[in-house]
Amino acid sequence: MRATVMYGAGDVRVENVPDAAIKEPTDAVVRVVLSCVCGSDLWPYASLPASDHGRRMGHEFLGVIEDLGSDVQGFKRGDLVVAPFVWSDNTCDFCREGLQTSCRHGGQWGHNLDGGQGEAVRVPQAQGTLVKLPVGEDSPLLPSLLTLSDVLCTGHHAAVTAGVNPRTTVTVIGDGAVGLSAVIAAKRLGAERILLMGRHEDRTGLGREFGATDIITERGEEGIARIRELTGGDGTHTVLECVGTQDAINTAIAAVRDGGAVGRVGAAQYTDVPMNFGTVMRNITLTGGVAPARAYIEELMPDILEGTIQPGKVFDQTVALDDVAAGYRAMADRTALKVLIRP
Amino acid sequence: MRATVMYGAGDVRVENVPDAAIKEPTDAVVRVVLSCVCGSDLWPYASLPASDHGRRMGHEFLGVIEDLGSDVQGFKRGDLVVAPFVWSDNTCDFCREGLQTSCRHGGQWGHNLDGGQGEAVRVPQAQGTLVKLPVGEDSPLLPSLLTLSDVLCTGHHAAVTAGVNPRTTVTVIGDGAVGLSAVIAAKRLGAERILLMGRHEDRTGLGREFGATDIITERGEEGIARIRELTGGDGTHTVLECVGTQDAINTAIAAVRDGGAVGRVGAAQYTDVPMNFGTVMRNITLTGGVAPARAYIEELMPDILEGTIQPGKVFDQTVALDDVAAGYRAMADRTALKVLIRP
Repeated sequence: MRATVMYGAGDVRVENVPDAAIKEPTDAVVRVVLSCVCGSDLWPYASLPASDHGRRMGHEFLGVIEDLGSDVQGFKRGDLVVAPFVWSDNTCDFCREGLQTSCRHGGQWGHNLDGGQGEAVRVPQAQGTLVKLPVGEDSPLLPSLLTLSDVLCTGHHAAVTAGVNPRTTVTVIGDGAVGLSAVIAAKRLGAERILLMGRHEDRTGLGREFGATDIITERGEEGIARIRELTGGDGTHTVLECVGTQDAINTAIAAVRDGGAVGRVGAAQYTDVPMNFGTVMRNITLTGGVAPARAYIEELMPDILEGTIQPGKVFDQTVALDDVAAGYRAMADRTALKVLIRP
Repeated sequence: MRATVMYGAGDVRVENVPDAAIKEPTDAVVRVVLSCVCGSDLWPYASLPASDHGRRMGHEFLGVIEDLGSDVQGFKRGDLVVAPFVWSDNTCDFCREGLQTSCRHGGQWGHNLDGGQGEAVRVPQAQGTLVKLPVGEDSPLLPSLLTLSDVLCTGHHAAVTAGVNPRTTVTVIGDGAVGLSAVIAAKRLGAERILLMGRHEDRTGLGREFGATDIITERGEEGIARIRELTGGDGTHTVLECVGTQDAINTAIAAVRDGGAVGRVGAAQYTDVPMNFGTVMRNITLTGGVAPARAYIEELMPDILEGTIQPGKVFDQTVALDDVAAGYRAMADRTALKVLIRP
C-alpha cells in the first residue's frame, strides 16, 4: 500500500509500504477515507534530523473497517469509524478517568507503526480506540467529523481544562486550526466574550464566524496591553494557548486574570514557564496538555451531526495522497490553514 | 505602643511606634492577644537589604476590638476576632469569587502599616476582613484558632486547588508549619494516602499524628524515585508544594501522576517552572498560589472548635513581644517549628 514517510526536515515522500494487517487479536485494519496534515506535523517538517529509515506520518483519520481481530467487539467490517490521535484500550484506570493519552496500553500513530496519511492503518486496541460514525462514506460532514480525531478535541480540551463557562471571558492565542477550534469550543461552552489573537485576516475572519468577538493583531507586550485594555485592566478569566512557543505561553500567563487559568494545548517548544512569585500572588493556574480526544468524541459528535458547529471549515485545501508533500509545503508556507488528504 | 520592625537581614527590633488608631471610617483597632512568626518572614530575615526606616512585621494575629470606625457593621468593642493575612473588603468581584488576596481594596499587613507582631493593629476594611471568634481570651484553643489567619488556610488552599479528595493520593513537600497544615487539610478532605517529604524527625512525627501515612526523607531525584516506588511508578494524584524553592517545585512537577495537579503555596523563590513538553504530554496542572484565607475561615473554624483538628500543635515555642528576635532566630536555626508571640 501507499503511505507517507518523512525522512527529514522538508523531506516528505509517499511510498510503497507493507500492507496494513492484523497482528494482534485486538487489532483492526481501517481503509482510510479521509485524513489530514496536523499543525504539529510542521514541527518535524521544520526540524526532523535526516535518516534512512524515515518516520511514518499522520495521526488524524477516518475510514472503513476492512478487517477485525478476534477480540474486537461491537464493530463489523464496513463500519465507518473515526480514530482519535492516540490509541488506547479505554478500560485502564487512566482511560476511565478520561485521560486516554496516558493509557497503560496505548500509543501514537506513525513512527514505526502505520500512520493516518496512507491508504490503510493497523489499529491497535481497536475496540477501545475507534468510534463509529453514523453517516455514509459520501457524507458532506466527513471533514467536520475528521476534526474529532484531534483538532476540535484539542481546542475543546484547552477550554474544558481552563474552565470556560458562560461567566468567563476567554483569550485564544493562535489563529491556526487548533486556535479556531478553541474558539468553537469556548463559544459552545457558553463564553460570550472571546478575544482571538492572530494576524492572518482570512483565519481571524473564520474565527469571527466561529464566535470570536475581538481580534487582537498585536503580539508580545503590545498584545498583552491590548488584552488588558479590552478587559478593564484585568485580563481574561481564561486563556487558551494554542501555539506552543515561548512567546505564546509567556503571553498567556501575563494576560490571564487573577485567579484564572491558562489551558495550554500547543506542542510546547519551550522548556520552562514563568510561573514565578508574581503568578503565585495572582493565583494563576496552568493546565491543559495533550488532548484525550477519545474522551470527547461522543460528546462533540452530535453538534457536528446537527450542524450546530462546523469545525470542518478549517480545511481550506485538499490533496490526493500522492500530493501530500505539496500539502505540507502549503501549510508550512501558511498558504493553507489545514490540508485534507483523500487517498 | 511596641511593635516589631525589621531593619535588614537578621536585624529584628521591638520599638516604640505610633499607637494604632482609626484613620478611615472602615477601620478598626485590634489589641493583639496572640500573634506569631511566619515561615515567609524568614525570607526577609535572610535577605532584606538594610535600611533606616525598616519594615513593620507580622501578618498573623488575633485579638480584641478596641475601637471601631463609623462604617463598620456587625462588630462591637470587646469582640475577639481573627484577621486573615491579607485584608479585603469582602464585597468586590474578586472577594465574591473567593479570591480575597486580589481584593480591589485590599492589602497586606506590615511594611508601612501596622503588623501583627505588635501590641495593636489598625485594621483597614475591618468589616470585610475580621472574623469573630466564639471563645474567650483565655481559651486554650487560641493557638489553633490563630492558624486560621494563615498557615492552616494556606495548607488547605494547596489541597483544595490541587483537588484532594478521598480518591486522590497526596504528596506534601515540606515539613514546616505549612506542610504540616497541608497534611491536616488533605486528611480532612478525605485523602487516605499522604506522603510527607521532610527530614526533621520531630516534625515528620507530628505529620504522622496529623495523618501522613509515609515519610520520605530523600530529596531531589532520590525523593522522586521514592515517591514513584511507593505508588507503583505513577506518582501521586496531587502534590502540595509547601516550600517555595526551585528544587521543591521541580520535585513536585516530577512526582505528580499523569493528569494530576500540583498545588503550590510556598513563597516562590524561583522564576520559572519546568512545565515543558513532557508535562504537556502528561497533562500536569500547576495551580495554587497565595491563600485567600478569608474565604476559608468560617469553613475550617468548626473543626477547631470541635477538636477534630489541632493545627495549633505546630507552635512549639512561645516568646514575649520583647523577645521576638529570639523567636526569629529559633525558627531560622530550625530549633523551633513555629513561634507564638504573646504581647
